[in-house]
Amino acid sequence: MDYEGIFKAAIDRLHDEGRYRVFIDILRTKGSFPNAHCFHGHNGPKPITVWCSNDYLGMGQHPAVVAAMEEALHSVGAGSGGTRNIGGNTHYHIQLEAELADLHAKQAALLFTSGYVSNEAALSTLGKLLPGCIIFSDELNHASMIAGIRSSGCEKRVFRHNDLEHLEQMLMEAPLETPKLIAFESVYSMDGDIAPIGAICDLADKYGALTYLDEVHAVGMYGEHGGGISERDAVADRVTIIEGTLGKAFGVMGGYVAADKNIIDCIRSYAPGFIFTTSLSPVLVAGALASVRHLKQSSDERLAQQAGAAALKARFAEAGLPVMESVTHIVPLLVGCPVKAKRISDILLAEYGLYVQPINFPTVPRGTERLRFTPGPNHSDAMMDEVTAALVEIWGRLELELRRAA
Amino acid sequence: MDYEGIFKAAIDRLHDEGRYRVFIDILRTKGSFPNAHCFHGHNGPKPITVWCSNDYLGMGQHPAVVAAMEEALHSVGAGSGGTRNIGGNTHYHIQLEAELADLHAKQAALLFTSGYVSNEAALSTLGKLLPGCIIFSDELNHASMIAGIRSSGCEKRVFRHNDLEHLEQMLMEAPLETPKLIAFESVYSMDGDIAPIGAICDLADKYGALTYLDEVHAVGMYGEHGGGISERDAVADRVTIIEGTLGKAFGVMGGYVAADKNIIDCIRSYAPGFIFTTSLSPVLVAGALASVRHLKQSSDERLAQQAGAAALKARFAEAGLPVMESVTHIVPLLVGCPVKAKRISDILLAEYGLYVQPINFPTVPRGTERLRFTPGPNHSDAMMDEVTAALVEIWGRLELELRRAA
Ligand SMILES: Cc1ncc(COP(=O)(O)O)c(C=O)c1O
Ligand SMILES: Cc1ncc(COP(=O)(O)O)c(C=O)c1O
Repeated sequence: MDYEGIFKAAIDRLHDEGRYRVFIDILRTKGSFPNAHCFHGHNGPKPITVWCSNDYLGMGQHPAVVAAMEEALHSVGAGSGGTRNIGGNTHYHIQLEAELADLHAKQAALLFTSGYVSNEAALSTLGKLLPGCIIFSDELNHASMIAGIRSSGCEKRVFRHNDLEHLEQMLMEAPLETPKLIAFESVYSMDGDIAPIGAICDLADKYGALTYLDEVHAVGMYGEHGGGISERDAVADRVTIIEGTLGKAFGVMGGYVAADKNIIDCIRSYAPGFIFTTSLSPVLVAGALASVRHLKQSSDERLAQQAGAAALKARFAEAGLPVMESVTHIVPLLVGCPVKAKRISDILLAEYGLYVQPINFPTVPRGTERLRFTPGPNHSDAMMDEVTAALVEIWGRLELELRRAA
Repeated sequence: MDYEGIFKAAIDRLHDEGRYRVFIDILRTKGSFPNAHCFHGHNGPKPITVWCSNDYLGMGQHPAVVAAMEEALHSVGAGSGGTRNIGGNTHYHIQLEAELADLHAKQAALLFTSGYVSNEAALSTLGKLLPGCIIFSDELNHASMIAGIRSSGCEKRVFRHNDLEHLEQMLMEAPLETPKLIAFESVYSMDGDIAPIGAICDLADKYGALTYLDEVHAVGMYGEHGGGISERDAVADRVTIIEGTLGKAFGVMGGYVAADKNIIDCIRSYAPGFIFTTSLSPVLVAGALASVRHLKQSSDERLAQQAGAAALKARFAEAGLPVMESVTHIVPLLVGCPVKAKRISDILLAEYGLYVQPINFPTVPRGTERLRFTPGPNHSDAMMDEVTAALVEIWGRLELELRRAA
């Protein structure tokens, strides 16, 4: 067997399509984020400004978060030392689960090592427990949900993105007495649009389906306490299972689901991806606990972030840059070609010290390659002027089209 | 649909079989581990001694690890803020991957959020890239490998545990020109036995198969630099892919694979479980880096641990307790009944302040339920006397059989 040749060919395919990924080598600078450091390979080591972090609110450097992690590190140590069942359950885990259940107005919550694992473990376990279940999945659902649905072994029916009519038609066609689960996201992170959660719950009620909502890009960001779009829209109680991450707006790492006590107990008891793995480090859990608690009672970060996103969108539009329509904190700029998207990103980093990652297939469909900006409360007006001017210069240099200024 | 009833019934099944799990609520005490604190529900909050941690060497409280994490926390912040490709790559990640590649004498290594995810992502991706691949899997392989093999979509053939003849027969029966992968562990963590790695590699050579070795319970523990059993047996260069965790002997959290550059590049480029998730927190990566580096140049912890394990086995045997044969650092005590195993564990915790978790199905086969002790370099002689005496008392109280003293 020419194993070597097979692996080599798989890599070559990526080079040929212009989507071989080189990770840029950075270190953020706590306290002055979005400032960071970039190492060799991109015009030498130098300070940069990060424009594509999912630490949307800068909570990764919040004093309360850092202090809580330091305390846990010194009182408990680095890792948990075991699975949740065997030595790796700590008081922090229990407290954070209670806090997250409360955040989403659910009876219980369960922690996982990441949002990816929470989607994969929860969806596959729910699907396995419900005999003959059909899972209705939004066509833009995240890879982790797709993995979970696949491993559930359930039949999957994909409905057009946010298309209520299509979803209803599919629900109608499914046998009445078959268990059904509708899986979708609140904020779709690459386009920045939002699902009609309430209307989807109406359909779920009408056709007797459960609902599974990924709020990964919304928790901490929306709702009076950071409970996500389901809190903002006052529909959290209508959603069966809410899933979230601790690694984006909460600034740390880890994932979770929140739901009724029995559902959580089932996932806790049956999901291999939960049972057979070292639990989250207590240091992370303590940090996430501080972050969730802070964002429950403070809206300052959310408001500053929303103002920043609005300001950047306005600047881009004024300059005629092809900013994509987005009703959320995400500011995508359409390029439509993987090579050009990478080229713009390379120039921004090498010449301007501005870091924004090009988003290519398979993260977004081919032909919709883009730059995705995530302004946060710490991006100043001057930074926004800087990045807008840089983009206009590069757009001109590469002879890309500018829209007529609004 | 009576969803409620279905979930309720799934929980009831666990209660009926005596394997509903209640997590005990503890906090370790950094600096004095294995001492810890146990919260309500087990005879009130009180200090306890942990006998079942997989922080085998106590590295979770090592000053070098704690200092490195503190430094990273203060200079970089809590989380990475992104996937490895989009803003979440840091200089720490790159350094740790280089260190792990070196540890296993491989060209490259790749980090994951956990050992579970590394097995699942790597095995499923390898299987998908090798057309028609057959995966030969040891019957006692860990749940994470089983999940990876399942999601690879490959045909799986299960060979009897560590049975070279059975494996050879299966290899012989497979078509010559079909890609083959043998997946196995070095140290099996519930029995404490070890795979004949060299002999398995001989078979792999003879039949043209790749080898995938899970060294999760061996990294940091065996070999002059903590490279695992493959280092101890000087066969690391013969194994195609070595997988490990940062959450057990290294005391932190995370997982990895090490292999040839092209294989690592394939997994890096094609595995959804690697691509679509927030990268490991730089705080954890910095801690793991310090831990791996320390255990590369220090064998003190390994030697002390091995002496401790030998001493505990001897004490148990002398007292006539049914200690299972184990050639490693793991000390399993056979009970053979889930209810009794739980009862012994409950008495140990409530009356003696000693914490050892009962290991029941599905972690071990029914009828082999056990208590699994993991003595570390910080368990003193007095602690060993204490736990031996407690067990002898409980064995008598529950009218369990003691072996004739050796
Ligand atoms: C919609 C969505 N769900 C889940 C995840 C996974 O969350 P985590 O990064 O915590 O693994 C992501 C991104 O990473 C995501 O975009
Ligand atoms: C053999 C084996 N492989 C992999 C894992 C998973 O490693 P981690 O705990 O880092 O997820 C475990 C235990 O947790 C294990 O026992």
